[in-house]
Amino acid sequence: MSYNLLKGKRGIIFGALNDQSIAWKVAERAVEEGATITLSNTAVAVRMGQVSELGQKLNCEVIPADATSLEDLENVFKKSMEVLGGKIDFVLHSIGMSPNVRKGRDYDDLNYDFLNKTLDISAISFHKMLQAAKKQDAIAEEGSVLALTYIAAQRTFCGYNDMADAKSLLESIARSFGYIYGRSSKVRVNTISQSPTMTTAGQGVSGMDKLFHFAEKLSPLGNADADDCANYCMVMFSDLTKKVTMQNLYHDGGFSSVGMSDDAIEVFEKGLE
Amino acid sequence: MSYNLLKGKRGIIFGALNDQSIAWKVAERAVEEGATITLSNTAVAVRMGQVSELGQKLNCEVIPADATSLEDLENVFKKSMEVLGGKIDFVLHSIGMSPNVRKGRDYDDLNYDFLNKTLDISAISFHKMLQAAKKQDAIAEEGSVLALTYIAAQRTFCGYNDMADAKSLLESIARSFGYIYGRSSKVRVNTISQSPTMTTAGQGVSGMDKLFHFAEKLSPLGNADADDCANYCMVMFSDLTKKVTMQNLYHDGGFSSVGMSDDAIEVFEKGLE
Amino acid sequence: MSYNLLKGKRGIIFGALNDQSIAWKVAERAVEEGATITLSNTAVAVRMGQVSELGQKLNCEVIPADATSLEDLENVFKKSMEVLGGKIDFVLHSIGMSPNVRKGRDYDDLNYDFLNKTLDISAISFHKMLQAAKKQDAIAEEGSVLALTYIAAQRTFCGYNDMADAKSLLESIARSFGYIYGRSSKVRVNTISQSPTMTTAGQGVSGMDKLFHFAEKLSPLGNADADDCANYCMVMFSDLTKKVTMQNLYHDGGFSSVGMSDDAIEVFEKGLE
Amino acid sequence: MSYNLLKGKRGIIFGALNDQSIAWKVAERAVEEGATITLSNTAVAVRMGQVSELGQKLNCEVIPADATSLEDLENVFKKSMEVLGGKIDFVLHSIGMSPNVRKGRDYDDLNYDFLNKTLDISAISFHKMLQAAKKQDAIAEEGSVLALTYIAAQRTFCGYNDMADAKSLLESIARSFGYIYGRSSKVRVNTISQSPTMTTAGQGVSGMDKLFHFAEKLSPLGNADADDCANYCMVMFSDLTKKVTMQNLYHDGGFSSVGMSDDAIEVFEKGLE
Repeated sequence: MSYNLLKGKRGIIFGALNDQSIAWKVAERAVEEGATITLSNTAVAVRMGQVSELGQKLNCEVIPADATSLEDLENVFKKSMEVLGGKIDFVLHSIGMSPNVRKGRDYDDLNYDFLNKTLDISAISFHKMLQAAKKQDAIAEEGSVLALTYIAAQRTFCGYNDMADAKSLLESIARSFGYIYGRSSKVRVNTISQSPTMTTAGQGVSGMDKLFHFAEKLSPLGNADADDCANYCMVMFSDLTKKVTMQNLYHDGGFSSVGMSDDAIEVFEKGLE
Repeated sequence: MSYNLLKGKRGIIFGALNDQSIAWKVAERAVEEGATITLSNTAVAVRMGQVSELGQKLNCEVIPADATSLEDLENVFKKSMEVLGGKIDFVLHSIGMSPNVRKGRDYDDLNYDFLNKTLDISAISFHKMLQAAKKQDAIAEEGSVLALTYIAAQRTFCGYNDMADAKSLLESIARSFGYIYGRSSKVRVNTISQSPTMTTAGQGVSGMDKLFHFAEKLSPLGNADADDCANYCMVMFSDLTKKVTMQNLYHDGGFSSVGMSDDAIEVFEKGLE
Repeated sequence: MSYNLLKGKRGIIFGALNDQSIAWKVAERAVEEGATITLSNTAVAVRMGQVSELGQKLNCEVIPADATSLEDLENVFKKSMEVLGGKIDFVLHSIGMSPNVRKGRDYDDLNYDFLNKTLDISAISFHKMLQAAKKQDAIAEEGSVLALTYIAAQRTFCGYNDMADAKSLLESIARSFGYIYGRSSKVRVNTISQSPTMTTAGQGVSGMDKLFHFAEKLSPLGNADADDCANYCMVMFSDLTKKVTMQNLYHDGGFSSVGMSDDAIEVFEKGLE
Repeated sequence: MSYNLLKGKRGIIFGALNDQSIAWKVAERAVEEGATITLSNTAVAVRMGQVSELGQKLNCEVIPADATSLEDLENVFKKSMEVLGGKIDFVLHSIGMSPNVRKGRDYDDLNYDFLNKTLDISAISFHKMLQAAKKQDAIAEEGSVLALTYIAAQRTFCGYNDMADAKSLLESIARSFGYIYGRSSKVRVNTISQSPTMTTAGQGVSGMDKLFHFAEKLSPLGNADADDCANYCMVMFSDLTKKVTMQNLYHDGGFSSVGMSDDAIEVFEKGLE
């Protein structure tokens, strides 16, 4: 299925790790829709993971970068413009990691160096990306920038820990920079708040499988998966959504607007017995 | 416990039915806090129910009124000013009823005459109340008006049916009229979005007991009960909250800000087995 | 510009009046994107307006209907399925009218018969539409239903009057029915909260031109116009947004997420001098 | 005016600088309402400012602390329990500072060391405070913790810069920790989103005076000032709001729920001429 929605557009996809990654699907779909792209991930991920395979498959360059390094990010934009032959039309930020979650630190026993890393990797990296881009004037007029987020930014989910705070910060940066970049170059900046998704990163969150099942029962359309998300990214990158900016867009089968569903309450009642 | 928070204030409490009603508790607490009040409910409720007992106990007048009748509401304000000897400082709207819920009509099989009644009784009555008051200039400068609502106005809860829509309308009316009445007389208008509460009205909603249990498990502080709500109303009627207006205030033990709790997910998981 | 996003899809567009109408643009774009459609508006609008021209131009049937009449709406769906040869894939509700606004009644001096009409025409019509469709099973699996709304549902805008309350009710109906229709047939129901738009209806709202200018200055991308809105409707009707439901989607150049902009504050400061 | 709302309660007030500070007013009011308290601010602020005067006036200990130092914060809770003779019932966090704002760095030219400081001082300090308290079990059952915030966490305000992101993070921490502390000890954690206030800190924000005037015109009740805020804090610290947690409470004369007011549009129109 292709509509040529991104015909002639140039994009950068940050965060593809393996074929379960949302970013991986977005990269594939973007190329299907007519875009040329570059990929970026950490040097380690590039060496160890399957990103290079994806690069070969899609015939696109992989540019390693530490998303907390302004220099590295500047280089990604610089190189991408060279390789793709012009300014960038769309960017995906799909980056998040919490050392506190990884090391099993509870939220009332955070290691603050870890917290700084969580915020730096998962949220501030988005600001650095945008600042690096803007200083080089690397994003084309009416370009579109997306970051992936989760509803834990609005409501507490057990086990999500300091990633909730990181996502709140990320969404705020999207609004703050969206204002700036919208005025100067009509670039829109939005976040997509995605259903729990069974990616490698998602599976790292403790209890994610339980949240996944609960969300599945609560959402009238069921959870949105990585393929669905890639489709939604296509429309947000396309010329058909030029006036949507500074928004947090729930892509979750209705989850965010349901307090309790018939299906979920039935399971809950059974559990109470 | 009394702080004299409402010393010298005059109030009208709409919707006390029996000693389980939130409005009943609010009336009792308001008098404890030093206010003089009148009570109002439908003629049928007054005849059949225990409102008159409450009136005797609190030594206050009961003024029957159909909350959908502008005339009746005008009369409540007129009479109350006479009886209480001056303009009204605070008003509670605790009124809601859905014939569709009562008659077991599903949301995709609504009777539209019933829907009109749901909206008229549960939401438009609030506008009529405020319009009736304002035309007589019946509410004192810096007065405080509250209506009780439920989070179904923001998120769908199975079984809540067209009451969800009525609550959305009610909250919008609070904002719209709050703007008007704030500018003209510094009167604030707010809604309190209360935990599911085991009142007579609450028990009428199909599956309310299930929602009650779920909310209890999700909320870190547990559900707020009618006594808690009465306390919250005291502070919102007091002089200490003079700058709070056009707000929907969640009073729910944290429910509205929790996506999934450890306690609730445990029950849910058990139910899935 | 066409991407064939709606190739083979069947739709109904309610509310096209003249070539300034958003619904008019949506109809044109839907046909461009490969859909076949029917149009509906009131009998008076059909007789007096240019809807028939549009019907001829797009080679599509115009089915008159009073949007407050369940019968008429049932007929629109029945006829549309006949004419288009199958179940309906997408529906646009672009209907709103307030007799209180038209007759210059202030919000604290509403005529309640008028208010009932405002709600019936502008909000309950959406429920009737959905109920009529669902009873005939007229909407195809994974169909998409949209209604147009305005941010006055969340924040008070002077002059918007009881239309604010109608829009709140409309958005609630979208959520409530979205839950029902999502579970039964994977039909998604969303609202688009559009910038103030200089349509015939928009111009009827007192002071709309002022709101338009303010919104233009506040929004980093400027106001979204009717053409922009038609584009956004295309993606929401397409297969690329199948998991988005029960959402209110701001389409406003960023307005909803800006508290104060450099441009607007400059004008404001000048006005204060 | 005193209601004895905090009779017998023990509190800690962070962030009083001089008699314009909100925290200063909160301290005074808390003592009026019957509480005994300690004050805390940075060593520099204590040396240079008028905090010691306030301590003398209110007869309470001033405990210097760098709010980014976990050790210092641990000490404040330890000392306060000693001095006040028991666990702490309420805490106010009124701390915020942005080196980027101070040094005039634009939001698309942030210094990232400065950003880390902004976040550490203005938001993470709140987590450290709560974690320090919880590890010592320093807050009494049903205690109440408040932090002051601003609506820039939800909507972009020109000139507010990276403080907007800090406030988003702060509000998220309040929710995340509110969940934890509510379950373990029924401690509630909320944020008050205050009108722009002419404090020393407020005046540091570029263009704050303009925002102040705009907010004044937009809000039907006008801006809430520091005295109003102190009153609101009293009710949130009292036993009358025991079930309110994880909320962001707008205390702003209605500002947050107004899109455009008659007064503000009039000024705006004049400015457009």
